Amino acid sequence: MTINYKFDVRNSRNLTMLVDFYELTMGNGYFRDGLNDKIAYFDMFFRRVPDGGGYCIMAGVEQLIEYLSNLKFLKEDIQYLRSKEIFCEEFLDYLENFEFTCDVWAIPEGNPVFPNEPLVTVRGPIIQAQFIETMILLTINHQTLIATKANRICRAAQGRTVMEFGSRRAQGYDGAIYGARASIIGGCSSTACTIAEEMFNIPASGTMAHSWVQLYSTEYEAFKAWAEIYPDNCVFLVDTYNVLKSGIPNAIKIFDKVLKPKGYRPKAIRIDSGDITYLTKRSREMLDNAGYEDCKIIVSNALDEHIIRDVVNQGAQIDAFGVGERLITAKSEPVFGGVYKLVAVESAIGIEPRIKISENEEKITNPGFKKIYRIFDKDSHMAIADIIGLHNEIIKEGEPLEIFDPIYTWKRKKITNYYVKELQVKIFDKGKSVYKSPSVMEIKDLAIKETEKLWPEVLRFENPHSYYIDLSNNLWNLKHSLLHKYTDMYK
Amino acid sequence: MTINYKFDVRNSRNLTMLVDFYELTMGNGYFRDGLNDKIAYFDMFFRRVPDGGGYCIMAGVEQLIEYLSNLKFLKEDIQYLRSKEIFCEEFLDYLENFEFTCDVWAIPEGNPVFPNEPLVTVRGPIIQAQFIETMILLTINHQTLIATKANRICRAAQGRTVMEFGSRRAQGYDGAIYGARASIIGGCSSTACTIAEEMFNIPASGTMAHSWVQLYSTEYEAFKAWAEIYPDNCVFLVDTYNVLKSGIPNAIKIFDKVLKPKGYRPKAIRIDSGDITYLTKRSREMLDNAGYEDCKIIVSNALDEHIIRDVVNQGAQIDAFGVGERLITAKSEPVFGGVYKLVAVESAIGIEPRIKISENEEKITNPGFKKIYRIFDKDSHMAIADIIGLHNEIIKEGEPLEIFDPIYTWKRKKITNYYVKELQVKIFDKGKSVYKSPSVMEIKDLAIKETEKLWPEVLRFENPHSYYIDLSNNLWNLKHSLLHKYTDMYK
Repeated sequence: MTINYKFDVRNSRNLTMLVDFYELTMGNGYFRDGLNDKIAYFDMFFRRVPDGGGYCIMAGVEQLIEYLSNLKFLKEDIQYLRSKEIFCEEFLDYLENFEFTCDVWAIPEGNPVFPNEPLVTVRGPIIQAQFIETMILLTINHQTLIATKANRICRAAQGRTVMEFGSRRAQGYDGAIYGARASIIGGCSSTACTIAEEMFNIPASGTMAHSWVQLYSTEYEAFKAWAEIYPDNCVFLVDTYNVLKSGIPNAIKIFDKVLKPKGYRPKAIRIDSGDITYLTKRSREMLDNAGYEDCKIIVSNALDEHIIRDVVNQGAQIDAFGVGERLITAKSEPVFGGVYKLVAVESAIGIEPRIKISENEEKITNPGFKKIYRIFDKDSHMAIADIIGLHNEIIKEGEPLEIFDPIYTWKRKKITNYYVKELQVKIFDKGKSVYKSPSVMEIKDLAIKETEKLWPEVLRFENPHSYYIDLSNNLWNLKHSLLHKYTDMYK
Repeated sequence: MTINYKFDVRNSRNLTMLVDFYELTMGNGYFRDGLNDKIAYFDMFFRRVPDGGGYCIMAGVEQLIEYLSNLKFLKEDIQYLRSKEIFCEEFLDYLENFEFTCDVWAIPEGNPVFPNEPLVTVRGPIIQAQFIETMILLTINHQTLIATKANRICRAAQGRTVMEFGSRRAQGYDGAIYGARASIIGGCSSTACTIAEEMFNIPASGTMAHSWVQLYSTEYEAFKAWAEIYPDNCVFLVDTYNVLKSGIPNAIKIFDKVLKPKGYRPKAIRIDSGDITYLTKRSREMLDNAGYEDCKIIVSNALDEHIIRDVVNQGAQIDAFGVGERLITAKSEPVFGGVYKLVAVESAIGIEPRIKISENEEKITNPGFKKIYRIFDKDSHMAIADIIGLHNEIIKEGEPLEIFDPIYTWKRKKITNYYVKELQVKIFDKGKSVYKSPSVMEIKDLAIKETEKLWPEVLRFENPHSYYIDLSNNLWNLKHSLLHKYTDMYK
């Protein structure tokens, strides 16, 4: 159950001042330069899928909406800023009476997303659109990172249950809480983080720790006490002393002596150390021989997608994985490198595109106010490509569509039997929230459904096929004309 | 300035329900088994220094105190727990009227700490001492990880300024906020995270983003606008188009035309991409030739201790580093593996030690209620060793002290000219906070002072000397008698 009152209390945490200091110095600068009403467009996007994967799972939009809905500078914030002695009073007044008026678009959570496509687009007064950079990045970077990692881990588990166990090793409290949320979006079945169940209505679960076993004089006594209290929820941690010589035999004794007479069946045993493949195979045999074929085997201990894939391939007898630190921190690649770039400004002549040049080719941005379309095959419903175009471009579904690689432009493909879906939805209209986030479980279902529309080649762990992210003709031409302009300038 | 009102508001965030679900099922179990008043002892410790380093920097105690001071179950929490239909009403009553009564000891923040020593020790009713496991680990693991990483990065910078820039890539909001706090403790001079200045009275700083430069029609215009607004705080980001052909020449023009006539000197230029060594050397020459020898050079862009050490060795001309994602996530090793283990319980016969056996030798715990002493040389004041002993052991400073390796026990050393310091301090007495945290800047100073007491061999990046963490004779004997008892049992 979700307790709405509490949910609201937590949502109202005011994170307005969680902002890179330069957003404020720039804001004051725009203000003093008379540019505070200048309308600007920013895109948030990433350049590379972590872990060499083929796609990411979008996450964090609900928290972004909460943040933008709660933007408000407190009196103490203004007082603090004043004490820095670099902000003009007019700017401080502006902040004190701050009203968010931007338009914001985002790709809904759970969708597979790809490099270079705008996950979030903001249109509004430069001073506002700039200010929210830090929190847009922080929110989307974090949750998309964890949802993507969870998705990899769950794929490796090939349908077996994956439980998120990482709170104690998370990077801060929100790392645990929103990390749990993102893990569910990525495919986990439950989390150990209790508050996340309260906040997001996602299942929390857990069993016993080594300390339970240690507290009693023997392992047998510890299991017995548990079975008497929780006969319908017996999951024994069997590796405190010795899995095969003590843990499993004691578990079986208790199943026989305590559960059986009461008509209960055991739920599972958990192994948290040692050679997983060997121990689970031997444990399975012992449980089966004792008549407990239905007793599941859970393993934990520094797991990730690679270890899971390995032990599954080796025939380990595992029903469920508890995955902790390597999921909640995305250990193999703990940084999601989303960026937020100015792509256009409005002037008397209309929308003027802006570009960021770099000697590093992949750091060059796509200029202009844009839209993203996902193209699906009409028969198979599989995703064929994403096309990034200018905001006023329309793809006419009846007409043949030619897509081409933005670098190797001679690589072209004509598509005829297709339909399109616009990826971004509007979440703020002139500063007012206009989008209702689905529940986390609905988002999880969407992620499963939309991921199934990607070809297996894109889902591959190693060297996945690069899904097509193409530019429309118009956008390609615009980008190249700007590139020529600037490179000519610094020849 | 610190705004105390706001600080209090933030501190009061109730994180009671940020707990692994099994702490609750175990709590209910202890309760139902009549063990809720059983007094238990737990140690929080880690087993390995991240990145192969020689020591860690303790951090997070202040937030741990806040958490423990705010432990309170809300009515909605009880209602939510009741809805799970596994907790007995007496246990829910107990939670609703929860009163924290534990004794807690911790090593104060800023101290260098080493594997296997109890960073935090808890004594109290098992139900309480168990419950707080998740948050003790989460809090200390996170901040100690980041303080330790920051300390490595700052050492690599060899006295140059290091600024924390990572909020946008942090793992959640608290990852940014408490990560900024821990970065300062580890040695950073400032953070870009504005709210962290408000909350902890640590310096926030920042300059301009590429978007400032892009917004204006030319880089020259962008710099000019900035210089006119902030003549006393001119730090230009010079890599939006081309560092050497555009950024530096434009910066110098503005220094000449805007700052000089007003009598101002430039502060710095910042380079955020490209070959740092080459670009900073050339930029330094250009600035010097133009008469701006005092204009500092700041670099950023995916830096860590290894890149910093490299570019410093190559003679890069750098005054300050802005370090972001690789610091705020401790990218090279983003998990701090602190654990929390039951080490003793009280019974009619006194304090009974408990041990956790493992086939993995380093996972075997040190049993008993313990103390840690740091031994210093009387003349040099350098740290010689830490000794973990039982709580009632006293090291008599006048007497010769024999220390020995707990594994290679024939390696022995006699120490005579020494004094000792007990590392842990009591932070809670029967549930009441009895320790006042120093300010973050005081903690940072302590970290510098205490780190200087470690031999250079311990400070080394690669293959540091292992600082001695020895057990007292009594503790060693206790541990080995328990080990024999259990291994005999499962022969």
